[in-house]
Amino acid sequence: MSAVEIIRKKRDGHSLSPEEIRDFVHAAAMGTWPDYQLSALLMAICIRGMTPEETAILTREMADSGTVFDLSAIPGIKVDKHSTGGVGDKVSLVLAPLVAACGAVVPMMSGRGLGHTGGTLDKLESIPGFRVNLSEAEFKSTLAKLGVAMIGQTAEVAPADMKLYALRDVTGTVESIPLITASILSKKLAEGISGLVMDVKCGRGAFMKTLPQARELAQSIARVGKLNGLNVRAIITGMDAPLGRAVGNSLEVIESIEILRGRGPADLRELCLVFAAEMLELAGKPDGFRQASEALDGGAALDKFRQMIASQGGDPAVVDDPSKLPRAESQTLLFAGQSGFVTEMDAEAVGLAGLELGAGRRRAEDRVDPAVGILVLKKPGEAVRAGEAIFEIHHNGPGIAAAMARLGRSFRIGDDAPAAQTTVLE
Amino acid sequence: MSAVEIIRKKRDGHSLSPEEIRDFVHAAAMGTWPDYQLSALLMAICIRGMTPEETAILTREMADSGTVFDLSAIPGIKVDKHSTGGVGDKVSLVLAPLVAACGAVVPMMSGRGLGHTGGTLDKLESIPGFRVNLSEAEFKSTLAKLGVAMIGQTAEVAPADMKLYALRDVTGTVESIPLITASILSKKLAEGISGLVMDVKCGRGAFMKTLPQARELAQSIARVGKLNGLNVRAIITGMDAPLGRAVGNSLEVIESIEILRGRGPADLRELCLVFAAEMLELAGKPDGFRQASEALDGGAALDKFRQMIASQGGDPAVVDDPSKLPRAESQTLLFAGQSGFVTEMDAEAVGLAGLELGAGRRRAEDRVDPAVGILVLKKPGEAVRAGEAIFEIHHNGPGIAAAMARLGRSFRIGDDAPAAQTTVLE
Repeated sequence: MSAVEIIRKKRDGHSLSPEEIRDFVHAAAMGTWPDYQLSALLMAICIRGMTPEETAILTREMADSGTVFDLSAIPGIKVDKHSTGGVGDKVSLVLAPLVAACGAVVPMMSGRGLGHTGGTLDKLESIPGFRVNLSEAEFKSTLAKLGVAMIGQTAEVAPADMKLYALRDVTGTVESIPLITASILSKKLAEGISGLVMDVKCGRGAFMKTLPQARELAQSIARVGKLNGLNVRAIITGMDAPLGRAVGNSLEVIESIEILRGRGPADLRELCLVFAAEMLELAGKPDGFRQASEALDGGAALDKFRQMIASQGGDPAVVDDPSKLPRAESQTLLFAGQSGFVTEMDAEAVGLAGLELGAGRRRAEDRVDPAVGILVLKKPGEAVRAGEAIFEIHHNGPGIAAAMARLGRSFRIGDDAPAAQTTVLE
Repeated sequence: MSAVEIIRKKRDGHSLSPEEIRDFVHAAAMGTWPDYQLSALLMAICIRGMTPEETAILTREMADSGTVFDLSAIPGIKVDKHSTGGVGDKVSLVLAPLVAACGAVVPMMSGRGLGHTGGTLDKLESIPGFRVNLSEAEFKSTLAKLGVAMIGQTAEVAPADMKLYALRDVTGTVESIPLITASILSKKLAEGISGLVMDVKCGRGAFMKTLPQARELAQSIARVGKLNGLNVRAIITGMDAPLGRAVGNSLEVIESIEILRGRGPADLRELCLVFAAEMLELAGKPDGFRQASEALDGGAALDKFRQMIASQGGDPAVVDDPSKLPRAESQTLLFAGQSGFVTEMDAEAVGLAGLELGAGRRRAEDRVDPAVGILVLKKPGEAVRAGEAIFEIHHNGPGIAAAMARLGRSFRIGDDAPAAQTTVLE
């Protein structure tokens, strides 16, 4: 069938055949359809949807449009975790060395931050010398040696996804469960893993704002993963307030190291252990929660992190001396105007404040400032007195006024402590 | 609003504001949105639709994106007729000089053939020397002198429509009532007319295959025309079998001359008179049917056609000596295998047979052969004996086998005469 016939078929609400989906994906990867035809079909998919079977084929074809890693020579069960993105979400930084320290193999391929959400690659790159662009050979040798490696999506991995992702961003076709599912899972299939724990963030600071939306995405990812032979556990977690206390690249590395040391914020430690347990269970280790707790408290996870940094060209001394990480020139405090309890905090507003400072990207080609960010000194549920600081803003000048304005409107103080918020929703 | 915000709004099924529609049309005309954004919005409109009010604004903005003729200096009421396209539909060739001969002014802007349907411009250009690309000044002076001129859409007229029409063709977004309505009416608004008779063809050889589809388009055009101050009469006419007996450019000119001489096929003459009466009524002349009959039978319409040909650079001698028109090298007959009545004939198949011979275009850039075509010797309802010819195929060699194969499957012969088919359906 011609491009126009395929587009018309989906426009009229019909399912596409495997061959038609393959033609579309090949065209995206090879540039054989002009962009205006790709975007017309993306819009038709966005509005008309796709069945799980169509989405599964789309996912597999997108994975097969590029390199699919063959990790069979590396012993051990390969598992990974992926998040739909949040504010202060540094779980991957903790999880990858933690789960590897417990005996599973974690070939983690992550993304960069965009908009108000951060990205694992940006956080790792705030470590001086750390390289996320390993070659396939380096990736495999690091995995074989340490059981963990953390890299970015290369041009060879799922090139059809790279093309379509860029086009969706400028054609109003981002918000589509089948397209989001295929984009996430195609890269995960290319990693050569057998199990995936999916963190579907839900709330004001997340891409999915409501529980029904988050559920739909979680179910789609689980079902489409299964249709492609990938064992997926999807967990919906809350993202109304920032996770942990640090937002911003080097600040989040410091907080991750705290967790790896057996310290740090309780909500963040809890989430890391829950995800570690799920990943370890997928790797055939049923007692993962206890095992992971011991790896945090006993130093095994931190050792693994130190080794991974060294192996990927970074300076492992940052683990014991965080002053070796980039630090912003100025710290400014934002004070509470009244006493009471912090009743709510808008994660998206905090993320956007970080963006104003230069911690994130407005467009894919922007550069980030690794040093800037925000420490949340008082989180929802905590008591605060008038005149006490709520935020500590790390900045290098630009954006400080705009960030302060956003942060000033990002929280509420009330007389009564709010009900405790659960992090894991479903 | 940005392009992406406008696209997302329509994607989610909302109405666009006048400003948003204007932004879109300006972007199409000026090239300020990339094609992939235009096509994403076209697809969203195609699936989500537009209200009559949105469509009216789209139409007006598309007309205003280029030259709008000011014909106020030319006395008389300006009326036009437009058809959605059929097989053997040469009504415009008869109608323009006929209605002008009856005292209305007809500034007719027509299109070229595409696919199985023919185009008025191609038919006119089979007359040696005939120019359809008049300048605005030539167009106006011909109109002032004769009351009629027949031209093609220039690059200055509705450039937004030109851009979007080309893009719709390759992005599966042709079949959309609002987009079809705006495309047709924007060019008609640019003509500077006050009244339009719309021929919505319905049937196997038409773009609209069913009566409900044809009705929807007819109602949309009437309503959107009215919202823009244009008096529109929409008539739904049958297009199951070819109109008249000639299909192909110079063959259709010859048949048109027959009608203008007061002769020719009855179905074609009837339709020309019905449309002439409607146009003349829009021009304030209530007795149009009788007046137009007299103009055909008395030679006034043919005189007007002769003058128009001369005025637009063509050889008026073709009117009295059709051998001056291009004639194909060979004529081949297709015979009936059995006796009985022709019970049906598929206009689309006959149109596609013409396309095989070179009478039409597969793509907009194809050239047509003015000489080739098909004469339908036996039409539905007519008796035929085994061994009598049903089609006379005029060809220059290429496509004759494929055309014969299509024509051989295009009709049925039965024992009983079919019920008479009405040409004017509604």
